[in-house]
Amino acid sequence: MERLKKQMEFIVEVDKVKNIIRQTYLADGNRKENDAEHSWHLALMAVLLKEYSNEEVDLAKVVPMVLIHDLVEIDAGDTYAYDEAGAATKRERETKAADRIFCMLPQDQCSWFRELWEEFEAYETPEAKFAHVLDNCQPLLLNDASNGKSWAEHGVRKSQIYKRNENTSEGSVEIWEYMKELIDKHIRLGHVIDE
Amino acid sequence: MERLKKQMEFIVEVDKVKNIIRQTYLADGNRKENDAEHSWHLALMAVLLKEYSNEEVDLAKVVPMVLIHDLVEIDAGDTYAYDEAGAATKRERETKAADRIFCMLPQDQCSWFRELWEEFEAYETPEAKFAHVLDNCQPLLLNDASNGKSWAEHGVRKSQIYKRNENTSEGSVEIWEYMKELIDKHIRLGHVIDE
Repeated sequence: MERLKKQMEFIVEVDKVKNIIRQTYLADGNRKENDAEHSWHLALMAVLLKEYSNEEVDLAKVVPMVLIHDLVEIDAGDTYAYDEAGAATKRERETKAADRIFCMLPQDQCSWFRELWEEFEAYETPEAKFAHVLDNCQPLLLNDASNGKSWAEHGVRKSQIYKRNENTSEGSVEIWEYMKELIDKHIRLGHVIDE
Repeated sequence: MERLKKQMEFIVEVDKVKNIIRQTYLADGNRKENDAEHSWHLALMAVLLKEYSNEEVDLAKVVPMVLIHDLVEIDAGDTYAYDEAGAATKRERETKAADRIFCMLPQDQCSWFRELWEEFEAYETPEAKFAHVLDNCQPLLLNDASNGKSWAEHGVRKSQIYKRNENTSEGSVEIWEYMKELIDKHIRLGHVIDE
């Protein structure tokens, strides 16, 4: 039972990710979403949108990757996409968190999740590229649905969104085309600043 | 783009499941969890606990199954596990919801999700049995962590928990053993009524 006990303790520990609040509002605009909700959404998108990945991807890798990609924020906190000061210390804070959190699991599963997280961060494999497409697309869908609420609050500029998405088309040309149309719409509406 | 547009509209529509509140409290006891958080937790558990399924299960089926199993509640609402009046009309309310929600997707994906949901409800395949183990185990872990808060609030009796879990050991003997220890502990503590 020692192995199962460790796994169950991890499962309860990561419940904390439900209290890590992101900057994106839900589609109805009533409150900001948390990391668990965001990760659920990405996993569902992975399953539905796999056909649009430029390269063949293995969902047995993409799904766990998106389910765990934000767990490090339990210790390291959420760093907003356009927070430059936070970005400078992000890597160090998150690596320490990965060591503590993933290694609550039995050794084999600790290594597996640690490597999946590193793979996501390294942004090199087809699975990591596709996971990043989803991670960038989902808040955009919610921003669109909530009338650009989070963009407007943060005074987000077009160049920041394009910078963040500079590699998105490497993961999926078709999803990036869809995203660009939404971005253009919100530039026209004045929710994203066109400098 | 028509196909992608339908998929994206579904993805935004199901954001509503983040507002469907369950009766279980988060591990910290501070608030009740919602269906999206619960489904994220189940998908992660599926990935980590697959080894304990009595029969071999295909995660390519279990994971989407748990990700979508509560989407019908967007229209039908959450029916608490121990609400007998609600249970009587649950099936009818949920079938109607499944028709509307899943069929926002392109035909092939509508059929796929509709069948996965029916498979979950029918409780017959190894994947459905394992998904139900997770669906019953996760709130138990949270009840344990939050000191039996939801059980105490609802005056839940031992026989109700055992009735709900009458088939859990068909999915996983080992997880059911773990769950029974937790239930016994909370009977001793007086959070679950032993009649």
